[in-house]
Amino acid sequence: VSLPEWFDRDDERTARAVWSRITEPGDRVAVRFVERLGAGQALEAVLGGGTLGAEVAPRWRVRLDSTGPRLDRRTLARFDGRVLVPGDEEWPDGLDDLDDRRPFCLWVRGPLPVGRACTESVAVVGSRASTDYGETMTREIAGGLARRRVSVVSGAAYGIDGAAHRAALAEGGATVAVLACGVDRPYPSGHDRLIARIAAEGAVVSEVPPASSPSRWRFVERNRLIAAMSRGTVVVEAALRSGAIITATQAELLSRPVGAVPGPVVSPASAGCHWLLRDRNATCVTDAAEVRELIAPIGRGEVPARVTPRADHDDLSPTDIRVLDAVPARRSAPFLSIARAAGLDTAEVAAALGRLELSGLIVRIGESWRRAPRR
Amino acid sequence: VSLPEWFDRDDERTARAVWSRITEPGDRVAVRFVERLGAGQALEAVLGGGTLGAEVAPRWRVRLDSTGPRLDRRTLARFDGRVLVPGDEEWPDGLDDLDDRRPFCLWVRGPLPVGRACTESVAVVGSRASTDYGETMTREIAGGLARRRVSVVSGAAYGIDGAAHRAALAEGGATVAVLACGVDRPYPSGHDRLIARIAAEGAVVSEVPPASSPSRWRFVERNRLIAAMSRGTVVVEAALRSGAIITATQAELLSRPVGAVPGPVVSPASAGCHWLLRDRNATCVTDAAEVRELIAPIGRGEVPARVTPRADHDDLSPTDIRVLDAVPARRSAPFLSIARAAGLDTAEVAAALGRLELSGLIVRIGESWRRAPRR
Repeated sequence: VSLPEWFDRDDERTARAVWSRITEPGDRVAVRFVERLGAGQALEAVLGGGTLGAEVAPRWRVRLDSTGPRLDRRTLARFDGRVLVPGDEEWPDGLDDLDDRRPFCLWVRGPLPVGRACTESVAVVGSRASTDYGETMTREIAGGLARRRVSVVSGAAYGIDGAAHRAALAEGGATVAVLACGVDRPYPSGHDRLIARIAAEGAVVSEVPPASSPSRWRFVERNRLIAAMSRGTVVVEAALRSGAIITATQAELLSRPVGAVPGPVVSPASAGCHWLLRDRNATCVTDAAEVRELIAPIGRGEVPARVTPRADHDDLSPTDIRVLDAVPARRSAPFLSIARAAGLDTAEVAAALGRLELSGLIVRIGESWRRAPRR
Repeated sequence: VSLPEWFDRDDERTARAVWSRITEPGDRVAVRFVERLGAGQALEAVLGGGTLGAEVAPRWRVRLDSTGPRLDRRTLARFDGRVLVPGDEEWPDGLDDLDDRRPFCLWVRGPLPVGRACTESVAVVGSRASTDYGETMTREIAGGLARRRVSVVSGAAYGIDGAAHRAALAEGGATVAVLACGVDRPYPSGHDRLIARIAAEGAVVSEVPPASSPSRWRFVERNRLIAAMSRGTVVVEAALRSGAIITATQAELLSRPVGAVPGPVVSPASAGCHWLLRDRNATCVTDAAEVRELIAPIGRGEVPARVTPRADHDDLSPTDIRVLDAVPARRSAPFLSIARAAGLDTAEVAAALGRLELSGLIVRIGESWRRAPRR
């Protein structure tokens, strides 16, 4: 078999673009083949039919033969965007953690520098069938992340994903939509205006080439990119069986932190979140600050150990609490009566009464004491 | 000082009852003093004013002098119940884990054998200011525990506690109310009928003697008994600052499992639960079976790993899913077209089509295939 006239073994970028067409996402055999030989030489092996890869090449050749490499050349030339490959400055380095599930390239539309945007990023994902509660929480979290200059990565789906992108855009924040189809082919179609806006202000990315349609398989594999491109994943609302759960599982496989927003137990839309909290040891997150904390290096988070609201007696010693308990609120009581009620010896009670009076919690009336009026 | 005529150094039970009056709950010094000398001899040291315990005795003597030991004798004689002490068959052995915070005795009303009831028990606790959601979850969980023959331990307070006792009683289950006041003195008064019913069908217990009033200190310390008498603690609904959080903390100190029921983030009544999930590593529980699992020995729980609902393609291999994706739903497609769409080699595609046809997921029409109609 002779090599086509366009073929340039040293053009890694074009070769990777071709690989992204002739394989399906997550084809580990193809990734390992390309990593071993380089994209150009690996493609040459498939095109040329040499002995290298003779056993595995047929699975890729079937597509190369039918769609024709000319299509890929034309697509690349006409593409209103850029193709990122590993090693590019804009390449999101989190993708490298995928090892032999790493995409060959990323097809990108939009002004946002993807790699830099992903250095501080959270995947905010959830069910298409979201509730008002889930959408409210999504706005709170994604909007709060955007205000904290954390990029919001999601899948542009109906429900939680869409609410996450919209909240980030509304705050002027960075947002990345990772599609399961070509970036020129908005899916779902009801989100074509949203996706166009993300392409105008953020970034729309995909590992499958332009004009590709989404498929169940591509949706499943797309989720590994969402997980890998972000520092952590938060599931706001998800039924037990949902793509967001797959994204969380992928994040876990990549040792990325996973957060889940709790919700009413009676809401099936939160059942996946509760499963993550219970069975997958996800972190319970209830606001943007806690989500930010999820991806913060240890010791650099903004959330202090949550302090419970204070009451007057919070600073008191056990002895003082007991003596305060023994001082009546609506009448005054003499010293011995208070000592008896407190069950402490008289010296301790006398000292405690002095401290409580100084704190303004009790008032002395002659030789008796009563509680100070509430402030 | 001469010893009172009623005093019998060898009557440990009476001596412990006296100790429960002259101390406040959680008096570690008194507990250690009694553990060292025995309750009778320790009391003799306080009564007799000998050199033993000379430094600490005054704090207890102040009460002994004022209320008089005769009151304790009369109380014991008249008491419509029983006084349990460590070593009794009915003594709940979980209390021994409290070490020097162990109560001197338990004042008990009601037919339920307390020790046996506590061998399979869960503390179901929460805020007084509960919501409909919290009460519904409490009924679901406490009722489900009762049906599983797990005793429900709680504090008889308004809100979650009361709902827990009621749900257990409604199912004919065992329930134990642990009060911060004397067991003859129902608190809160709005629960006097509920507490009377628990005393008639379950058990009402307290470490403070009859006629004692509740105090802030006693409420705080009462929570350690709830935690220690149960195998695990579940907080159904609790604000950040609430007694239920103290009970959970006590359970944690005792290495007992702690569960928290998630709720809407927008509900302050669930904020304490979310804090437990996030900061205290509590287990997320959403129904009685999961709570039961909390106290089950490892490997003996009833909750299987939660299985997500199944779809037709759940059993399929990745290859078969890809081929199924490539088979059109509304028209038939020829073999090569399917192979190209799937991006797999022809032998793999042929084998997958055969398996999918056998599974009834696709149908063959001449040399083409299409999806089978949905069942």
